[in-house]
Amino acid sequence: MGNVHLNSQFTRHPFIERLQDNFQQSKHLICVGLDPDLARLPSYYESSVEGVFSFLMDVVESSLDYCLCYKPNISFFEALGIDGLRMLQKLVQQIPQTHPVIIDAKRGDIGNTSNMQARYIFDVLGADATTLHPYMGDDSLTPFFEYRDKYHFVLGLTSNEGAAMFEKLSLLKSELLYERVIKQCVNWNRQYGNVGVVVGATQTELASIRSIDSELLFLIPGVGTQGGSYEMVFQDGVNTAQLALINISRGLLYGSDDKITSLLLSERLKYFTSSV
Amino acid sequence: MGNVHLNSQFTRHPFIERLQDNFQQSKHLICVGLDPDLARLPSYYESSVEGVFSFLMDVVESSLDYCLCYKPNISFFEALGIDGLRMLQKLVQQIPQTHPVIIDAKRGDIGNTSNMQARYIFDVLGADATTLHPYMGDDSLTPFFEYRDKYHFVLGLTSNEGAAMFEKLSLLKSELLYERVIKQCVNWNRQYGNVGVVVGATQTELASIRSIDSELLFLIPGVGTQGGSYEMVFQDGVNTAQLALINISRGLLYGSDDKITSLLLSERLKYFTSSV
Repeated sequence: MGNVHLNSQFTRHPFIERLQDNFQQSKHLICVGLDPDLARLPSYYESSVEGVFSFLMDVVESSLDYCLCYKPNISFFEALGIDGLRMLQKLVQQIPQTHPVIIDAKRGDIGNTSNMQARYIFDVLGADATTLHPYMGDDSLTPFFEYRDKYHFVLGLTSNEGAAMFEKLSLLKSELLYERVIKQCVNWNRQYGNVGVVVGATQTELASIRSIDSELLFLIPGVGTQGGSYEMVFQDGVNTAQLALINISRGLLYGSDDKITSLLLSERLKYFTSSV
Repeated sequence: MGNVHLNSQFTRHPFIERLQDNFQQSKHLICVGLDPDLARLPSYYESSVEGVFSFLMDVVESSLDYCLCYKPNISFFEALGIDGLRMLQKLVQQIPQTHPVIIDAKRGDIGNTSNMQARYIFDVLGADATTLHPYMGDDSLTPFFEYRDKYHFVLGLTSNEGAAMFEKLSLLKSELLYERVIKQCVNWNRQYGNVGVVVGATQTELASIRSIDSELLFLIPGVGTQGGSYEMVFQDGVNTAQLALINISRGLLYGSDDKITSLLLSERLKYFTSSV
């Protein structure tokens, strides 16, 4: 009888569930960004697609206890050619099921095409979540949201300087473009229950963006190499479920020529998180 | 001595040069959109990646005299899996050099990542042009523009209903967001000489957008299946060089189960262009 009244609102989304389970272990909100750059690959690894795969698998195996999830940036795999994409597919398969995979792809097109994009990211590559450009509006995004068991992060305010050009334009109705986008994401999230936003950690606006809505999950790039502070993000970025995804990529992956080990990554992680 | 004063401003861009040469033959402004959808593939062709390749090569060989260029939509190839992308790479190689290839990819990310995206589209896949999302602003796009001999179409006003959600937002400074984006594209085009915009043919705003700048090259999707008129676009869309790229995809590719021939495509094309 209890089941009859089971409302899906009260069931945690499978993506969120795994993040919360991992937080019990990690005590940090780290999303490990996987941006494989041949030019920066530690010399311990062979300079080839196979070498990159070994490197990334070492990163994954050495960071499972410290992080909530992984975010391969598809563009870095694409730049390695078609073999790089096959390697991404294999990587997604081999990352343990405990840790969700966000393929950072920044897609979004007319509905017909967005359908194909979603099929690629989720059905072909096997991701659990992705990132989306809001510009083309709602029919460009709903084909993604319809993948109910996946999670979708829409670009809100990004961490680059160029964010000032359009994202921060003042609208007639006393708000900035990115605020309008984020408010729309709140609506989508109420409707679909699987929509988050990307908010750059270099932006001082984080606390004010948090005040728009307390439930929306933030994916926060820009910590480390791009200059954002992990402490500020930890404090101002979390939602009511005490979750945020703080992405660190280059600052964690690169910096020495040695084999990646759990000890090495935990040392690098301390550099970002020591003040928390 | 003449060469000393050769100003690149007066040399036509290689992409434009080929479009103009092809117009001498075609007398139409057609860009053939290549959106391979297995579900709609004529039964003459085998339902496989190889079958799709034969189909697309027949489309290309049968339309060379009628069109200016080709626009493969990368998302449709991605949805066919990694083999679909390898097929795209082969397709781009086999399209005759006379006809430029625009890979419709709608990319754009932080500069570091945009570099990787441009490398994939131009160096790995061999495109002559691509399409870009403006949301993240100028440092997300300049890594593309720096590929000087390539051409870059930034989304202005798209042809889908969702365009109303953000693209048509009123800004404080008495303009709409898409107008601001297009004005910025005019600046970029003056600086780089290789920037165009995507403007949907279903939009009644085409003539007013044309009045923003007379030189910017428009890539115009939405004719045919999406409901735009070729005649209106031909009249209101061309720039001072009498060029525009009017994309037709599904309306030209699908509709019978036969082998694609030059006769078949010319009949279908008449359906769109008979009034011009």
